[in-house]
Amino acid sequence: MTRSDKEEYVLTPWEVSGNIDYDELVERFGTSRVDEELKQRIENIAGEVHFMLRRNIFYSHRDLKWILDQYEKGNKFALYTGRGPSGHTHVGHLMPWIFARWMQDKFGVDLYFQLTDDEKYLFNFDLEMEDTYSYAMENALDIIALGFDPEKTFIFADTDYIHTLYPLALKVAKRVNFSTVKAVFGFDNSANVGSIFYTSMQSAPCFLPSDREGRKVPVLIPCGIDQDAHFRVTRDVAETIGYHKPALLHNKLAPSLDGTGKMSASIPKTTIFTTDTPEDVDAKISEAFTGGRMSAKEQREKGGNPDICAVQNYRYYLFEEDDERVADIADRCRRGDLLCGECKGLLKEKIRSFLKKHQERRERARDRLEEFLLKD
Amino acid sequence: MTRSDKEEYVLTPWEVSGNIDYDELVERFGTSRVDEELKQRIENIAGEVHFMLRRNIFYSHRDLKWILDQYEKGNKFALYTGRGPSGHTHVGHLMPWIFARWMQDKFGVDLYFQLTDDEKYLFNFDLEMEDTYSYAMENALDIIALGFDPEKTFIFADTDYIHTLYPLALKVAKRVNFSTVKAVFGFDNSANVGSIFYTSMQSAPCFLPSDREGRKVPVLIPCGIDQDAHFRVTRDVAETIGYHKPALLHNKLAPSLDGTGKMSASIPKTTIFTTDTPEDVDAKISEAFTGGRMSAKEQREKGGNPDICAVQNYRYYLFEEDDERVADIADRCRRGDLLCGECKGLLKEKIRSFLKKHQERRERARDRLEEFLLKD
Repeated sequence: MTRSDKEEYVLTPWEVSGNIDYDELVERFGTSRVDEELKQRIENIAGEVHFMLRRNIFYSHRDLKWILDQYEKGNKFALYTGRGPSGHTHVGHLMPWIFARWMQDKFGVDLYFQLTDDEKYLFNFDLEMEDTYSYAMENALDIIALGFDPEKTFIFADTDYIHTLYPLALKVAKRVNFSTVKAVFGFDNSANVGSIFYTSMQSAPCFLPSDREGRKVPVLIPCGIDQDAHFRVTRDVAETIGYHKPALLHNKLAPSLDGTGKMSASIPKTTIFTTDTPEDVDAKISEAFTGGRMSAKEQREKGGNPDICAVQNYRYYLFEEDDERVADIADRCRRGDLLCGECKGLLKEKIRSFLKKHQERRERARDRLEEFLLKD
Repeated sequence: MTRSDKEEYVLTPWEVSGNIDYDELVERFGTSRVDEELKQRIENIAGEVHFMLRRNIFYSHRDLKWILDQYEKGNKFALYTGRGPSGHTHVGHLMPWIFARWMQDKFGVDLYFQLTDDEKYLFNFDLEMEDTYSYAMENALDIIALGFDPEKTFIFADTDYIHTLYPLALKVAKRVNFSTVKAVFGFDNSANVGSIFYTSMQSAPCFLPSDREGRKVPVLIPCGIDQDAHFRVTRDVAETIGYHKPALLHNKLAPSLDGTGKMSASIPKTTIFTTDTPEDVDAKISEAFTGGRMSAKEQREKGGNPDICAVQNYRYYLFEEDDERVADIADRCRRGDLLCGECKGLLKEKIRSFLKKHQERRERARDRLEEFLLKD
C-alpha cells in the first residue's frame, strides 16, 4: 500500500482512507500542479473555467500543457475515464464525469468511458460477474443521464469489449513485470493472478482511440488521483508500443458526509446515491457531520466552522457552482447567522432537485444504452 | 523451474531439456500410471488399443478411470487439447493430435482445440501478435488435415475467442494467487503480468463444454506431461466454481533427431516440420543421430544399438504402428544385418509418403478453416 511517511493516510486505486495530503501526493507521484497559466489557456479555448478547476478540485496533472499544445495545433485529444462498477453510482462519482462532460462540450472531443466489471469481480470476493456487469449497466445510465454527446461518447464494459481490449492489454502486460506492480500497487504474493494482470486492462483504453482512428491520438484522462498508479505503469510502456503517453488531470476525492475521508459506497449512510429517494437524501443530510456547536444558542454566539463541515464540502465539490454563494454561506455560518438545520435544508433542496432531474434522465437512458455502448 | 533432485532435466510448460525421467515425474506430480486394466477398458469400448497407449507413450493420467466410468454410464466426456503457436507444426506436435483424433473417432466425442496465440506472444519477446496469430492459423491447417470430424471439432485461437474465454479465465484467476504460480511454474518477480495471468486462459477451455452444453461435462485432456502444471492449478479450483475437475492423459514427449531431449521447433535441423519438402526430410534424416558404429564393417560385425537411435525412436513414437515391424528392425540392427543408411532410407520413405498426403490435405484445409474455427 502507498503510505505517506507519517502513515496518516492510505491511497491506492483500491483503498483510500485517512486524511489525504494532496500537496504531498504531487511531490510523491511527481505530478505537476494545475497553475494559473494552464487555467488561463483552458479559459481561452473554453470561454470559461469550470468551477472544479477554479477551486483546484482538479489540481494536479501530467502533460496537460502538451495536450493543449497539440489541441492548438489542430491535433484533437480524446478523453478517457472510467468507473469500477462495484455498486450503484454515488454523487461523488459524478464529480469527474460532470467535468469530463464539460471538457467534451468545450473542446468538442470524443470520450471513452471504461466500466471495469472484470476489476471489481477480481478485487471483491463477494461479487459475482453477474453483479459487476449489472452494476456496470446501471452506472452507464448515470453517465448517459449527464448529457454526453452520443456521437462522441463510447461506453464499454470490459467483458463486453474484451475482444478489442485484450490485444491492447497484452501489449502492456508483456512489458510490465511483477516487481513493478508490487512496487506500484503494493501487491504481495497473495494477490490473485487476475488482479496482477488487471492494470493492463486499465491501460488498454489509452490506446483505443489511436487504433480506432488509425493515427496517434493524444489521450487525456480526468480521474481521481488515486488512479494515477495505473497510468504511471501505462506511461512507462506507451512509447515502446507505438503510442503517445496518456496525459492526466487529477481530481481530489469527494469527501464523505461523516467528515472522514472520501465518499464511499461501502458506507451507504454517509453517501448519497443517484438512486436515493428524497427521503433518503433528507435523512442522510440530517445526519451529516458539520462544524456546528453543541446548541443553537452557542452557535448563534460563537459561530460555526464551515471548514470542517461535510455539508459545506458537498456544496463546494459538487452542488454550488457560484463561488460567491459558497463564501456567503461560510461567512454567515462563522458569524452564527446560519444554523446547521437551515444550512442542511438548503443543501437538501439542492440535491433533491438535482436528483429529481437526474433520475428522470437516468430512466430515459435505459432506452438509449445501445446508442452509447461499444460491444464486440 | 521444476527440477529433479539430481538436476538432470528441466520440465515446465515452457522449457524442456535434459533426459526426462518419466517414472520420476509420475511420483513427483502425483499422477497415476495407465495400467493394463485401463487399457483393457479402453479396448472394450474402442475395439482396439492405439499403439501410443500400447507402447506407454500415453503413460500417465489423472481420473481416467472416472472418465471411463462416466462414459459407460452414458455421460460423454469432451476432449480438450492445444497448441502454442510459436512456429510451424512439427511431426512431434502431431503425436497427441493423432491420438486425440483416434479418441474422437472411437468414443464419438467432441474435441476442443485451443491455439494459445496470447501465450506465445507473452512468453516470446521476439514474436508479435501478428506472428503468433498467423502461426495459429497455419497450425489449424495441420489439425484439420488429420481428419477430425468437423461436426465435433472446435478450434479456436485465444484472441479470436476471448469474449467467451475471458469470463471463464477470470473465475480461475480470482482463485489463484502469485504464491501458487510461483511454486507451480517457478516464476520469479521478473515474470511479466500477462504470463502470470496466462494459466487462467489455459484453464478456461476445461469449462467451455459445460457452458456450451448447459450441463457439467467431464473433460479429458490428452497432452504432454509438461503441461500438467497448468491443470493441477485448474483442478484445484474447478469444483469451487461449479465444474468437474478435468481429467488428464499424459504423453511422453517426442524425441529430437539429434538424440538429445524433446523435438523442438527452435532447432529446425533436428526437427521435421509438416511443411518440409522431401529434400528437407532426406537431409534431416541423413543427419539424424543413430546407434550405428564408426564404419559399415564394424557395424556388420558388432551390430548397432537401436535403443539410443533417433531414427528408431521416430518409428516407435510416430511412424510405425506395427509393433512386430518395429521389433524386427531393431533385431536386424542389433545383428548387424541392417545398416544405418538403409534404415534411414526406410524412414525417409515413410515420412515423405506421410507428408505428401498430409500436405495435400493441409492445403485443402485452407478452404475449410471456417468450418472448424470458433470466433466471437
